[in-house]
Amino acid sequence: MPGAYPSVLEELMLSLRRLPGIGARTAERLALHLSGWKAEDLQRFGGLIAALPERLRLCTICGNLAESERCAICADSHRQPDVICVVEQALQIPVIERAGCFRGLYHVLGGRIEPLAHKGPDDLRLPELRRRLEGGTVRELILAMSSDVEGEATAAYLAQAFRSETLVVSRIAAGIPVGADLGYADAATLAVALRARVRI
Amino acid sequence: MPGAYPSVLEELMLSLRRLPGIGARTAERLALHLSGWKAEDLQRFGGLIAALPERLRLCTICGNLAESERCAICADSHRQPDVICVVEQALQIPVIERAGCFRGLYHVLGGRIEPLAHKGPDDLRLPELRRRLEGGTVRELILAMSSDVEGEATAAYLAQAFRSETLVVSRIAAGIPVGADLGYADAATLAVALRARVRI
Repeated sequence: MPGAYPSVLEELMLSLRRLPGIGARTAERLALHLSGWKAEDLQRFGGLIAALPERLRLCTICGNLAESERCAICADSHRQPDVICVVEQALQIPVIERAGCFRGLYHVLGGRIEPLAHKGPDDLRLPELRRRLEGGTVRELILAMSSDVEGEATAAYLAQAFRSETLVVSRIAAGIPVGADLGYADAATLAVALRARVRI
Repeated sequence: MPGAYPSVLEELMLSLRRLPGIGARTAERLALHLSGWKAEDLQRFGGLIAALPERLRLCTICGNLAESERCAICADSHRQPDVICVVEQALQIPVIERAGCFRGLYHVLGGRIEPLAHKGPDDLRLPELRRRLEGGTVRELILAMSSDVEGEATAAYLAQAFRSETLVVSRIAAGIPVGADLGYADAATLAVALRARVRI
Protein backbone atom coordinates (compact mmCIF):
# COMPACT_ATOMS: atom_id res chain seq x y z
CA MET A 1 0.00 0.00 0.00
CA PRO A 2 1.54 3.31 -1.05
CA GLY A 3 2.06 5.74 1.76
CA ALA A 4 1.88 3.08 4.47
CA TYR A 5 5.49 3.88 5.41
CA PRO A 6 7.39 7.14 5.75
CA SER A 7 8.82 8.06 2.36
CA VAL A 8 12.43 7.40 3.41
CA LEU A 9 11.48 3.77 4.10
CA GLU A 10 9.51 3.47 0.85
CA GLU A 11 12.53 4.74 -1.09
CA LEU A 12 14.82 2.40 0.83
CA MET A 13 12.56 -0.55 -0.03
CA LEU A 14 12.69 0.41 -3.72
CA SER A 15 16.50 0.34 -3.59
CA LEU A 16 16.58 -2.95 -1.69
CA ARG A 17 14.26 -4.56 -4.25
CA ARG A 18 16.87 -4.01 -6.94
CA LEU A 19 19.09 -6.57 -5.19
CA PRO A 20 18.94 -10.17 -6.45
CA GLY A 21 16.49 -12.40 -4.61
CA ILE A 22 14.91 -9.52 -2.68
CA GLY A 23 11.18 -9.20 -3.31
CA ALA A 24 8.67 -6.73 -1.93
CA ARG A 25 8.15 -8.53 1.38
CA THR A 26 11.83 -9.12 2.04
CA ALA A 27 12.65 -5.49 1.18
CA GLU A 28 10.00 -4.43 3.69
CA ARG A 29 11.44 -6.71 6.37
CA LEU A 30 15.00 -5.52 5.72
CA ALA A 31 14.04 -1.83 5.72
CA LEU A 32 12.18 -2.21 8.99
CA HIS A 33 15.08 -4.11 10.49
CA LEU A 34 17.44 -1.34 9.39
CA SER A 35 15.18 1.25 11.00
CA GLY A 36 16.02 -0.40 14.32
CA TRP A 37 19.82 -0.18 13.87
CA LYS A 38 21.93 2.26 15.83
CA ALA A 39 22.70 5.54 14.08
CA GLU A 40 26.44 4.85 13.94
CA ASP A 41 25.92 1.42 12.37
CA LEU A 42 23.60 2.88 9.76
CA GLN A 43 26.10 5.59 8.95
CA ARG A 44 28.91 3.06 8.58
CA PHE A 45 26.76 0.74 6.42
CA GLY A 46 25.39 3.54 4.24
CA GLY A 47 28.85 5.06 3.96
CA LEU A 48 30.34 1.78 2.73
CA ILE A 49 27.70 1.50 0.01
CA ALA A 50 28.09 5.11 -1.07
CA ALA A 51 31.89 4.72 -1.09
CA LEU A 52 31.91 1.65 -3.35
CA PRO A 53 32.37 3.59 -6.60
CA GLU A 54 35.47 5.36 -5.35
CA ARG A 55 36.94 2.57 -3.23
CA LEU A 56 36.35 -0.26 -5.67
CA ARG A 57 38.00 -0.61 -9.06
CA LEU A 58 39.07 -3.32 -11.43
CA CYS A 59 42.65 -4.59 -11.31
CA THR A 60 44.38 -3.16 -14.38
CA ILE A 61 46.11 -6.49 -14.94
CA CYS A 62 43.52 -9.21 -14.42
CA GLY A 63 40.18 -7.42 -14.07
CA ASN A 64 39.57 -8.71 -10.53
CA LEU A 65 37.95 -6.40 -7.97
CA ALA A 66 40.64 -4.27 -6.36
CA GLU A 67 41.13 -1.31 -4.09
CA SER A 68 44.19 -0.01 -5.89
CA GLU A 69 45.76 -0.38 -9.33
CA ARG A 70 46.46 -4.09 -8.75
CA CYS A 71 44.28 -6.63 -6.98
CA ALA A 72 45.59 -8.48 -3.92
CA ILE A 73 46.38 -11.55 -6.01
CA CYS A 74 48.29 -9.78 -8.79
CA ALA A 75 50.19 -7.83 -6.13
CA ASP A 76 51.18 -11.04 -4.30
CA SER A 77 54.72 -11.98 -5.34
CA HIS A 78 54.24 -15.50 -3.99
CA ARG A 79 51.76 -16.44 -6.70
CA GLN A 80 53.02 -18.50 -9.63
CA PRO A 81 53.28 -16.13 -12.61
CA ASP A 82 53.34 -18.93 -15.21
CA VAL A 83 49.75 -20.19 -14.82
CA ILE A 84 46.69 -18.06 -15.48
CA CYS A 85 43.22 -19.27 -14.57
CA VAL A 86 40.64 -17.63 -16.84
CA VAL A 87 37.22 -16.99 -15.28
CA GLU A 88 34.03 -15.41 -16.57
CA GLN A 89 33.38 -13.10 -13.64
CA ALA A 90 35.41 -11.64 -10.76
CA LEU A 91 33.00 -13.24 -8.30
CA GLN A 92 34.24 -16.67 -9.36
CA ILE A 93 37.77 -15.97 -8.11
CA PRO A 94 36.91 -16.30 -4.38
CA VAL A 95 35.20 -19.63 -5.15
CA ILE A 96 38.45 -20.97 -6.58
CA GLU A 97 40.55 -19.31 -3.88
CA ARG A 98 38.50 -21.08 -1.23
CA ALA A 99 39.41 -24.43 -2.75
CA GLY A 100 42.93 -23.45 -1.70
CA CYS A 101 44.83 -25.45 -4.31
CA PHE A 102 45.48 -22.87 -7.03
CA ARG A 103 48.49 -20.60 -6.55
CA GLY A 104 48.70 -18.99 -9.98
CA LEU A 105 47.16 -15.77 -11.31
CA TYR A 106 43.72 -15.02 -12.76
CA HIS A 107 42.21 -13.32 -15.72
CA VAL A 108 38.62 -12.10 -15.69
CA LEU A 109 36.85 -12.18 -19.06
CA GLY A 110 34.01 -9.98 -17.87
CA GLY A 111 31.43 -12.22 -19.51
CA ARG A 112 31.24 -15.08 -21.94
CA ILE A 113 30.19 -15.78 -25.49
CA GLU A 114 26.40 -15.72 -25.59
CA PRO A 115 25.09 -15.33 -29.14
CA LEU A 116 21.49 -15.05 -27.93
CA ALA A 117 22.45 -12.06 -25.76
CA HIS A 118 24.51 -10.60 -28.62
CA LYS A 119 27.73 -11.15 -26.67
CA GLY A 120 30.71 -12.20 -28.71
CA PRO A 121 34.49 -12.41 -28.24
CA ASP A 122 34.77 -8.63 -28.72
CA ASP A 123 32.91 -8.11 -25.47
CA LEU A 124 35.49 -10.05 -23.45
CA ARG A 125 38.77 -8.81 -21.96
CA LEU A 126 40.78 -10.70 -24.56
CA PRO A 127 43.21 -7.95 -25.71
CA GLU A 128 44.31 -7.65 -22.06
CA LEU A 129 44.85 -11.42 -21.89
CA ARG A 130 46.80 -11.40 -25.13
CA ARG A 131 49.05 -8.66 -23.77
CA ARG A 132 49.78 -10.72 -20.64
CA LEU A 133 50.83 -13.67 -22.77
CA GLU A 134 53.23 -11.61 -24.86
CA GLY A 135 55.92 -11.68 -22.19
CA GLY A 136 56.27 -15.44 -22.63
CA THR A 137 56.22 -16.13 -18.88
CA VAL A 138 52.86 -17.87 -18.98
CA ARG A 139 53.03 -21.52 -19.93
CA GLU A 140 49.47 -22.62 -19.08
CA LEU A 141 45.99 -21.13 -19.36
CA ILE A 142 43.40 -22.96 -17.24
CA LEU A 143 39.90 -22.28 -18.54
CA ALA A 144 37.52 -22.26 -15.58
CA MET A 145 34.31 -21.61 -17.47
CA SER A 146 30.94 -22.83 -16.22
CA SER A 147 29.95 -26.27 -17.45
CA ASP A 148 27.04 -25.22 -19.66
CA VAL A 149 26.55 -24.44 -23.33
CA GLU A 150 27.85 -20.86 -23.19
CA GLY A 151 30.73 -21.87 -20.93
CA GLU A 152 31.72 -24.65 -23.32
CA ALA A 153 31.46 -22.34 -26.31
CA THR A 154 33.62 -19.72 -24.63
CA ALA A 155 36.20 -22.31 -23.61
CA ALA A 156 36.31 -23.76 -27.12
CA TYR A 157 36.81 -20.31 -28.60
CA LEU A 158 39.61 -19.45 -26.16
CA ALA A 159 41.36 -22.77 -26.68
CA GLN A 160 41.44 -22.18 -30.40
CA ALA A 161 42.48 -18.55 -30.10
CA PHE A 162 45.30 -19.02 -27.59
CA ARG A 163 46.67 -22.56 -27.93
CA SER A 164 50.23 -22.46 -29.25
CA GLU A 165 53.51 -24.35 -29.21
CA THR A 166 54.54 -22.61 -26.02
CA LEU A 167 51.17 -22.36 -24.28
CA VAL A 168 49.14 -25.25 -22.87
CA VAL A 169 45.42 -24.53 -22.66
CA SER A 170 43.48 -26.74 -20.22
CA ARG A 171 39.89 -26.88 -19.02
CA ILE A 172 38.73 -27.69 -15.48
CA ALA A 173 37.11 -31.13 -15.34
CA ALA A 174 33.37 -31.67 -15.52
CA GLY A 175 31.88 -34.62 -13.65
CA ILE A 176 29.97 -35.77 -10.59
CA PRO A 177 30.26 -33.18 -7.78
CA VAL A 178 32.34 -34.46 -4.85
CA GLY A 179 30.03 -35.70 -2.11
CA ALA A 180 27.01 -35.79 -4.41
CA ASP A 181 24.65 -38.75 -4.55
CA LEU A 182 24.94 -40.41 -7.96
CA GLY A 183 21.18 -40.91 -7.92
CA TYR A 184 20.68 -37.17 -8.30
CA ALA A 185 23.19 -36.68 -11.12
CA ASP A 186 21.64 -35.59 -14.40
CA ALA A 187 22.17 -37.57 -17.58
CA ALA A 188 24.44 -34.96 -19.20
CA THR A 189 26.77 -34.85 -16.19
CA LEU A 190 26.86 -38.64 -16.04
CA ALA A 191 27.70 -38.86 -19.73
CA VAL A 192 30.58 -36.43 -19.27
CA ALA A 193 31.78 -38.23 -16.15
CA LEU A 194 31.74 -41.59 -17.91
CA ARG A 195 33.57 -40.28 -20.95
CA ALA A 196 36.23 -38.61 -18.79
CA ARG A 197 36.67 -41.68 -16.54
CA VAL A 198 40.07 -42.04 -14.90
CA ARG A 199 41.86 -45.37 -14.53
CA ILE A 200 42.54 -46.16 -10.88
CA MET B 1 38.38 -16.97 2.79
CA PRO B 2 39.68 -13.78 4.43
CA GLY B 3 41.28 -11.33 2.07
CA ALA B 4 39.66 -12.81 -0.99
CA TYR B 5 37.82 -9.51 -1.55
CA PRO B 6 38.90 -5.88 -1.30
CA SER B 7 38.39 -4.73 2.28
CA VAL B 8 35.50 -2.40 1.41
CA LEU B 9 33.56 -5.43 0.15
CA GLU B 10 34.51 -7.55 3.19
CA GLU B 11 33.23 -4.78 5.48
CA LEU B 12 30.08 -4.42 3.41
CA MET B 13 29.43 -8.17 3.69
CA LEU B 14 29.80 -7.97 7.47
CA SER B 15 27.17 -5.23 7.59
CA LEU B 16 24.84 -7.12 5.24
CA ARG B 17 25.09 -10.26 7.39
CA ARG B 18 23.54 -8.38 10.28
CA LEU B 19 20.27 -8.25 8.34
CA PRO B 20 17.68 -10.95 9.06
CA GLY B 21 17.85 -13.96 6.77
CA ILE B 22 21.14 -12.90 5.17
CA GLY B 23 23.91 -15.48 5.60
CA ALA B 24 27.51 -15.43 4.42
CA ARG B 25 26.76 -16.53 0.86
CA THR B 26 23.84 -14.16 0.38
CA ALA B 27 25.87 -11.26 1.79
CA GLU B 28 28.60 -12.09 -0.72
CA ARG B 29 26.12 -12.20 -3.58
CA LEU B 30 24.49 -8.92 -2.54
CA ALA B 31 27.83 -7.12 -2.07
CA LEU B 32 29.03 -8.26 -5.48
CA HIS B 33 25.75 -7.20 -7.05
CA LEU B 34 26.07 -3.80 -5.42
CA SER B 35 29.61 -3.45 -6.77
CA GLY B 36 28.04 -3.47 -10.23
CA TRP B 37 25.57 -0.66 -9.53
CA LYS B 38 26.00 2.80 -10.97
CA ALA B 39 27.76 5.33 -8.71
CA GLU B 40 24.70 7.55 -8.43
CA ASP B 41 22.47 4.63 -7.42
CA LEU B 42 24.96 3.54 -4.77
CA GLN B 43 25.15 7.07 -3.42
CA ARG B 44 21.37 7.34 -3.25
CA PHE B 45 21.02 3.92 -1.60
CA GLY B 46 23.86 4.49 0.88
CA GLY B 47 22.57 7.97 1.60
CA LEU B 48 19.09 6.67 2.42
CA ILE B 49 20.52 4.17 4.90
CA ALA B 50 22.81 6.72 6.52
CA ALA B 51 19.93 9.22 6.72
CA LEU B 52 17.53 6.85 8.49
CA PRO B 53 18.41 8.01 12.02
CA GLU B 54 17.64 11.63 11.23
CA ARG B 55 14.77 11.13 8.80
CA LEU B 56 12.94 8.45 10.75
CA ARG B 57 11.31 8.95 14.13
CA LEU B 58 8.40 7.61 16.11
CA CYS B 59 5.06 9.38 15.97
CA THR B 60 4.70 11.18 19.31
CA ILE B 61 1.03 10.18 19.44
CA CYS B 62 0.85 6.53 18.40
CA GLY B 63 4.45 5.33 18.16
CA ASN B 64 4.20 4.49 14.43
CA LEU B 65 7.19 5.20 12.18
CA ALA B 66 7.04 8.81 11.05
CA GLU B 67 9.03 11.45 9.27
CA SER B 68 7.79 14.32 11.40
CA GLU B 69 6.18 14.74 14.81
CA ARG B 70 3.06 12.89 13.72
CA CYS B 71 2.83 9.82 11.46
CA ALA B 72 0.82 9.98 8.24
CA ILE B 73 -2.14 8.23 9.87
CA CYS B 74 -2.36 10.44 12.97
CA ALA B 75 -2.00 13.49 10.73
CA ASP B 76 -4.86 12.34 8.48
CA SER B 77 -8.03 14.18 9.52
CA HIS B 78 -10.19 11.69 7.64
CA ARG B 79 -9.39 8.85 10.05
CA GLN B 80 -12.00 8.00 12.72
CA PRO B 81 -10.67 9.36 16.02
CA ASP B 82 -12.96 7.21 18.18
CA VAL B 83 -11.45 3.78 17.44
CA ILE B 84 -7.86 2.84 18.25
CA CYS B 85 -6.34 -0.38 17.01
CA VAL B 86 -3.56 -1.50 19.37
CA VAL B 87 -0.67 -3.39 17.77
CA GLU B 88 2.56 -4.85 19.13
CA GLN B 89 4.92 -3.38 16.55
CA ALA B 90 4.84 -0.54 14.03
CA LEU B 91 5.51 -3.02 11.24
CA GLN B 92 2.06 -4.54 11.82
CA ILE B 93 0.29 -1.32 10.86
CA PRO B 94 0.92 -1.66 7.10
CA VAL B 95 -0.42 -5.22 7.26
CA ILE B 96 -3.72 -3.93 8.64
CA GLU B 97 -3.71 -0.90 6.33
CA ARG B 98 -3.41 -3.24 3.35
CA ALA B 99 -6.61 -4.99 4.38
CA GLY B 100 -8.19 -1.60 3.64
CA CYS B 101 -11.14 -1.89 6.03
CA PHE B 102 -9.91 -0.08 9.12
CA ARG B 103 -10.24 3.71 9.14
CA GLY B 104 -9.46 4.45 12.79
CA LEU B 105 -6.18 5.28 14.51
CA TYR B 106 -3.41 3.06 15.87
CA HIS B 107 -1.38 2.66 18.99
CA VAL B 108 1.95 0.84 18.97
CA LEU B 109 2.83 -0.97 22.20
CA GLY B 110 6.44 -1.44 21.22
CA GLY B 111 6.41 -5.05 22.39
CA ARG B 112 4.26 -7.42 24.34
CA ILE B 113 4.16 -9.14 27.69
CA GLU B 114 6.76 -11.90 27.62
CA PRO B 115 7.66 -13.09 31.12
CA LEU B 116 10.40 -15.38 29.78
CA ALA B 117 12.11 -12.38 28.14
CA HIS B 118 11.55 -10.30 31.29
CA LYS B 119 9.14 -8.05 29.44
CA GLY B 120 6.19 -6.81 31.45
CA PRO B 121 3.52 -4.11 31.12
CA ASP B 122 6.06 -1.47 32.18
CA ASP B 123 7.96 -2.04 28.94
CA LEU B 124 4.95 -1.17 26.80
CA ARG B 125 3.77 2.26 25.67
CA LEU B 126 0.82 2.15 28.04
CA PRO B 127 1.10 5.59 29.71
CA GLU B 128 0.87 7.09 26.20
CA LEU B 129 -2.25 5.03 25.49
CA ARG B 130 -3.83 6.03 28.77
CA ARG B 131 -3.22 9.69 27.94
CA ARG B 132 -4.95 9.27 24.58
CA LEU B 133 -8.02 7.80 26.29
CA GLU B 134 -8.30 10.66 28.78
CA GLY B 135 -9.92 12.99 26.27
CA GLY B 136 -12.97 10.69 26.16
CA THR B 137 -13.15 10.69 22.35
CA VAL B 138 -12.17 7.04 22.04
CA ARG B 139 -15.04 4.60 22.44
CA GLU B 140 -13.36 1.38 21.27
CA LEU B 141 -9.96 -0.23 21.58
CA ILE B 142 -9.38 -3.05 19.10
CA LEU B 143 -6.62 -5.35 20.31
CA ALA B 144 -4.76 -6.69 17.28
CA MET B 145 -2.28 -8.89 19.08
CA SER B 146 -0.79 -12.00 17.52
CA SER B 147 -2.73 -15.17 18.16
CA ASP B 148 -0.17 -16.92 20.35
CA VAL B 149 0.43 -17.26 24.09
CA GLU B 150 2.21 -13.93 24.55
CA GLY B 151 -0.31 -12.15 22.30
CA GLU B 152 -3.21 -13.59 24.27
CA ALA B 153 -1.57 -12.65 27.59
CA THR B 154 -0.97 -9.11 26.40
CA ALA B 155 -4.54 -8.78 25.13
CA ALA B 156 -5.94 -10.15 28.39
CA TYR B 157 -3.86 -7.67 30.41
CA LEU B 158 -4.93 -4.75 28.24
CA ALA B 159 -8.60 -5.73 28.34
CA GLN B 160 -8.51 -5.77 32.12
CA ALA B 161 -6.51 -2.56 32.40
CA PHE B 162 -8.56 -0.46 30.00
CA ARG B 163 -12.10 -1.83 29.87
CA SER B 164 -14.56 0.68 31.36
CA GLU B 165 -18.15 1.85 31.20
CA THR B 166 -17.31 4.19 28.35
CA LEU B 167 -14.74 2.10 26.50
CA VAL B 168 -15.38 -1.11 24.58
CA VAL B 169 -12.32 -3.34 24.31
CA SER B 170 -12.45 -5.89 21.48
CA ARG B 171 -10.04 -8.45 20.10
CA ILE B 172 -9.57 -9.37 16.43
CA ALA B 173 -10.98 -12.81 15.68
CA ALA B 174 -8.89 -15.96 15.59
CA GLY B 175 -9.91 -18.77 13.24
CA ILE B 176 -9.24 -20.48 9.95
CA PRO B 177 -7.30 -18.18 7.59
CA VAL B 178 -9.38 -17.11 4.59
CA GLY B 179 -8.51 -19.24 1.61
CA ALA B 180 -6.75 -21.86 3.72
CA ASP B 181 -7.39 -25.57 3.29
CA LEU B 182 -9.09 -26.90 6.41
CA GLY B 183 -6.94 -29.99 6.10
CA TYR B 184 -3.91 -27.96 7.05
CA ALA B 185 -5.44 -26.17 10.02
CA ASP B 186 -3.84 -27.06 13.35
CA ALA B 187 -5.93 -28.39 16.23
CA ALA B 188 -5.67 -25.20 18.32
CA THR B 189 -6.90 -23.02 15.47
CA LEU B 190 -9.75 -25.42 14.75
CA ALA B 191 -10.78 -25.45 18.39
CA VAL B 192 -10.86 -21.65 18.44
CA ALA B 193 -12.73 -21.51 15.13
CA LEU B 194 -15.36 -23.99 16.35
CA ARG B 195 -15.88 -22.20 19.64
CA ALA B 196 -16.22 -18.84 17.89
CA ARG B 197 -18.59 -20.20 15.22
CA VAL B 198 -21.01 -17.70 13.74
CA ARG B 199 -24.65 -18.53 12.94
CA ILE B 200 -25.38 -18.05 9.24
